[in-house]
Amino acid sequence: MGRLPAADEGSAALVRARAEATLRPSGALHRLDDVAVWLARWQRTSEPHVERPAAIVFVADHGVADEGVSAYPPQVTADVLRALQEGVATANAMARVLSVSLSVVDVGVGTPSGNLAHESALSSDAFDECFTAGRRAVTDVDADVLIVGEMGIGNTTAASAICTALYGGPAEQWTGRGTGIDEATYERKLRVVEAAVKRIATVRDPLEILREVGGFELAAIAGAVTEARLRSIPVLLDGFVVTAAAAVVDRVRPGALDHCFAGHRSSEPGHALVLEKLGMQPLLDLDLRLGEGSGALAALGLVKLAAACVTDVATFEEWGLIQ
Amino acid sequence: MGRLPAADEGSAALVRARAEATLRPSGALHRLDDVAVWLARWQRTSEPHVERPAAIVFVADHGVADEGVSAYPPQVTADVLRALQEGVATANAMARVLSVSLSVVDVGVGTPSGNLAHESALSSDAFDECFTAGRRAVTDVDADVLIVGEMGIGNTTAASAICTALYGGPAEQWTGRGTGIDEATYERKLRVVEAAVKRIATVRDPLEILREVGGFELAAIAGAVTEARLRSIPVLLDGFVVTAAAAVVDRVRPGALDHCFAGHRSSEPGHALVLEKLGMQPLLDLDLRLGEGSGALAALGLVKLAAACVTDVATFEEWGLIQ
Repeated sequence: MGRLPAADEGSAALVRARAEATLRPSGALHRLDDVAVWLARWQRTSEPHVERPAAIVFVADHGVADEGVSAYPPQVTADVLRALQEGVATANAMARVLSVSLSVVDVGVGTPSGNLAHESALSSDAFDECFTAGRRAVTDVDADVLIVGEMGIGNTTAASAICTALYGGPAEQWTGRGTGIDEATYERKLRVVEAAVKRIATVRDPLEILREVGGFELAAIAGAVTEARLRSIPVLLDGFVVTAAAAVVDRVRPGALDHCFAGHRSSEPGHALVLEKLGMQPLLDLDLRLGEGSGALAALGLVKLAAACVTDVATFEEWGLIQ
Repeated sequence: MGRLPAADEGSAALVRARAEATLRPSGALHRLDDVAVWLARWQRTSEPHVERPAAIVFVADHGVADEGVSAYPPQVTADVLRALQEGVATANAMARVLSVSLSVVDVGVGTPSGNLAHESALSSDAFDECFTAGRRAVTDVDADVLIVGEMGIGNTTAASAICTALYGGPAEQWTGRGTGIDEATYERKLRVVEAAVKRIATVRDPLEILREVGGFELAAIAGAVTEARLRSIPVLLDGFVVTAAAAVVDRVRPGALDHCFAGHRSSEPGHALVLEKLGMQPLLDLDLRLGEGSGALAALGLVKLAAACVTDVATFEEWGLIQ
């Protein structure tokens, strides 16, 4: 990961002071003020902004989908990829409303990863390629705030396996209903997660865990989050899959996710838990469970407001009032 | 209140069906889908939209402010009124980001209402005038979604008194820290609420409760919410003060708030409680406590997305997939 740039605490302090001095009761918008301070800290400016928001959605197929762990057949991944590319998926509609530049990156649709229940999901080469593809996707966009999203039938199974391996605890804690699966499918999913975690019981390196039980798009997300950190671009995290991949980066280097803010908490139980582990408090809590970056996109409107509420509101002093 | 128009359940059903058929797992955005259905139901269209959002902020002074129930002196009301009119307050900044048309209506700044601790807050004439001013403010805007906001030092005391009188229970339950008051001020505020509720112990008529222990802007809000209902304009409710005034309308006629959706839950304990009484689940829960319509404005971004996520996303069928 190399040397990580330090945050701009000077700009952060200026924005905190301005938020405290604006024409409203102290702390009345404190959660939004925190967002503005976070933007300032990583945008390295005392005038935080959301002018060039970008979202990158990584899409891939998963060998583990053959285990019947989803409510949808694996080919839905390719269908949704096409919808994202043609601009008719949910993330596209949200991006249009929010003037977000949306990129869609196919990191392995049609050529599924290994079945993580029985074998390594990614070879070392595939892992490096996907991680690099994630990094490159970030260098390809000119963003002042970045959203990372994903789509891939089977990928909440991968996220559950990653979190169980990273943090321990029973697999049930980390395993949810994904796209909305029935009881029998849930039992299968749980057995798969347990098998995967057992298979790599001796693996301790977080990146190896990601390679073994992750997926192409999860490796790309880890790369994208890392590149954003190196470039000091604030990242708004989406749901369970994105957060699980990002959590790997945190385990490699504590503090490496300081540039990330949790956009939302989804209905996946593992998502709430991994956010707790990361010490992140999400902006939204609406039981969304779509992926595609949709939860982070939904939260982006609040980030825009947070910036305006410190930069575009008078202070008590400017308004001729002494506080 | 006259005859209330029925909701357009036909359009609501069409939007519900379309949301279920869009290219995403069933229920993946159900909270946002609910918002889209609510818009359709009151906009009376199967293509819900947020094209002409408007916010009206009612501002007034309160006689009860003389009791020292706020962290700020009464003259701050006039200062913030001027800031709202000049476009430098928080609500203005939010409205600009969201392309919301913001109106500011002075319903009694400089001429405080009666001190609700000891006397009727409003005379019958003043009540009628303010209620009518609220109605007229709605007829003056051309809105497809309406936000109602308020500002007035002392008005959370009025909201607490209204709710205690409407719903009963100890005044502590309904009384919070408002602008951020200290323990001594809180004790004074609590005594004032108790005195006000005791003074009108025999009053049962909800509108009389509002007249006795409310305020000019609270009467205007009740009028605005009522007029919006008559015109079938969906209303996004803001915080405790707005919701308390709206609750009066609900008590006059159960169902009269069916066109309202809770934008957020503030840090006022009474707000959470009155939302429960009204059976409303808020979109945001960010401990905001500013007023000015800011919580509802923050939620409006989600309403925009909710509309787009049903009208601007392909269905499985349109995308050539059978579900």
